[in-house]
Amino acid sequence: MNVSVFGAGAWGTALALHCLRAGHAVTLVPRRLEQALQLAADRENKDYLPGFKLPADLQIGMEARPALMETGLVLLACPTRGLRPLAESIAKELAAAGSAPMFVTLCKGLEKDTLLAPHAVLAQCLPGAATGALSGPSFANEVAAGKPTAVVMATTADEQHARTVQQALSGPTLRVYRSTDVIGVELGGALKNVYAIGAGICDGLGLGDNAKASFLTRALNEMAKLGLRLGGKIETFYGLGGFGDLVVTCTGRGSRNRTFGEELARGKKVAELLEGRHTVVEGYGATAAFAEVCRRQKIDAPILNEINAALYANKEPKRALMDLMTRELREEA
Amino acid sequence: MNVSVFGAGAWGTALALHCLRAGHAVTLVPRRLEQALQLAADRENKDYLPGFKLPADLQIGMEARPALMETGLVLLACPTRGLRPLAESIAKELAAAGSAPMFVTLCKGLEKDTLLAPHAVLAQCLPGAATGALSGPSFANEVAAGKPTAVVMATTADEQHARTVQQALSGPTLRVYRSTDVIGVELGGALKNVYAIGAGICDGLGLGDNAKASFLTRALNEMAKLGLRLGGKIETFYGLGGFGDLVVTCTGRGSRNRTFGEELARGKKVAELLEGRHTVVEGYGATAAFAEVCRRQKIDAPILNEINAALYANKEPKRALMDLMTRELREEA
Repeated sequence: MNVSVFGAGAWGTALALHCLRAGHAVTLVPRRLEQALQLAADRENKDYLPGFKLPADLQIGMEARPALMETGLVLLACPTRGLRPLAESIAKELAAAGSAPMFVTLCKGLEKDTLLAPHAVLAQCLPGAATGALSGPSFANEVAAGKPTAVVMATTADEQHARTVQQALSGPTLRVYRSTDVIGVELGGALKNVYAIGAGICDGLGLGDNAKASFLTRALNEMAKLGLRLGGKIETFYGLGGFGDLVVTCTGRGSRNRTFGEELARGKKVAELLEGRHTVVEGYGATAAFAEVCRRQKIDAPILNEINAALYANKEPKRALMDLMTRELREEA
Repeated sequence: MNVSVFGAGAWGTALALHCLRAGHAVTLVPRRLEQALQLAADRENKDYLPGFKLPADLQIGMEARPALMETGLVLLACPTRGLRPLAESIAKELAAAGSAPMFVTLCKGLEKDTLLAPHAVLAQCLPGAATGALSGPSFANEVAAGKPTAVVMATTADEQHARTVQQALSGPTLRVYRSTDVIGVELGGALKNVYAIGAGICDGLGLGDNAKASFLTRALNEMAKLGLRLGGKIETFYGLGGFGDLVVTCTGRGSRNRTFGEELARGKKVAELLEGRHTVVEGYGATAAFAEVCRRQKIDAPILNEINAALYANKEPKRALMDLMTRELREEA
């Protein structure tokens, strides 16, 4: 199959390498021309995924149209805020390219202002296209290195189409499970970044393993409750895209969101932490977006609200955590 | 309240220290007289919880009867295999002591041969007594150090009694949630040790964070399914005593069960790992017990079975894990 990956951050690059190893003809299309030229020259993504050679048969694309010709699968590997412009630029070229690929998003969050989930953005920009969302516990460097990984791909496309894409994305080291709960998978991926900031705050405060495990227990429950209210299925939040992704993000070493919370708890300021970085902390924007969704829909989400206060209302992280932990004694469920 | 803790391993000692700080009159009764003499002399539990001073007002008990006089709460802090002899020795003294305390077990497993859960052993040995089970993400050294911890105490005693014990056990750093799902809490605590061995195998094989998170996702689902079949409530397995304890045991540094799996995967033999240790790896016995329960009740539990094969049928841990991971591609739920 011809596979195109739009966006050459760590995750897009890792999946491009994986798809190449799975035997596909892969084109990686960075969002900026300079980056494309750099990747083509260096044969390594030094900024986002250093240490992995980009083989000669990995095409580096400079423009959307050729990358869309005869392609069966397009992975949209941009931050949430870049999804609409990317999808719009693709929409302009799609008719001329004459293909009808499945578009699978890798971004995790809600669009600022509109508060739309990725599939809803695609429905506006690429009406009628088959779309899906890929999520799960997947640090990019491990996927690039061929370490065993399992993810979930949710799509409302017909089952045959879903199976074809599932098979195409799967390889000996990457197992792809199918789901039809697109909104649930998107919500799980986005919300876990919010709670990862909280887990990082636990780490930064040195609260210990017991406290962090309690925090994660309550975070998973809040995520499931909130996700259910917003249209997801409960089993999705206890699956790879919920629990699995939450665990890896909150306990693994490689998460930007967790690290962000950790440094915040150690006294750095939000502005300082956001300044001059070339990667996106998706949980930062996701927190504000979900806090707004909960406000509008009158959903009670105390953990989310405390993290929101720490990020946007200058509340001391320690105070935010303590306020959570000292709620009244009661029955667990 | 007078609180007695029978069994002076790490967890019993830590809870004794906690109860003392919470203002109770606490007697810690080691199971062996030599250990009692040693604790009384050293004022430190050097074998099981080194580094924590046992204050002068922590009574070290040499016999059961005085420790049972006027006591409101008895914590049974022994390994599962020690529960029946301990409960029987207590039963003999209880009438003479003239008290009717709540007995709360801290052990995690099923009794060998009978395959009974702790509450069922107590029902046989201490018929008519109020009993409960305490579980949750709680490394003993953190509780001893006063780090924030949340646990769940399940009891079928009447609500007023349950509340009284909950209040007694709670302190500024230890939060106790109530539950009525005794069997669920017991099953969660026991099963998580089984899966912790599997998580340790992931670690020992160097599979990476992604693979371990997938493993944990499937482990949680298997635990919930199995626990439900055995009479627990689903929300218990997603709470502190299920998910929370699973996460801390499988990702924290201090778990004996996780470490056991890790060393097994690195090539040590089971016999070698069990030889000469003065602490119990509860997951080792629990694996055999639950495998037998599943066999009898025809419950499908592939992860449990693979761990069982690695522990008791000499199956290579790597092969066991790989057999799990290479099952057919399919829908997630």
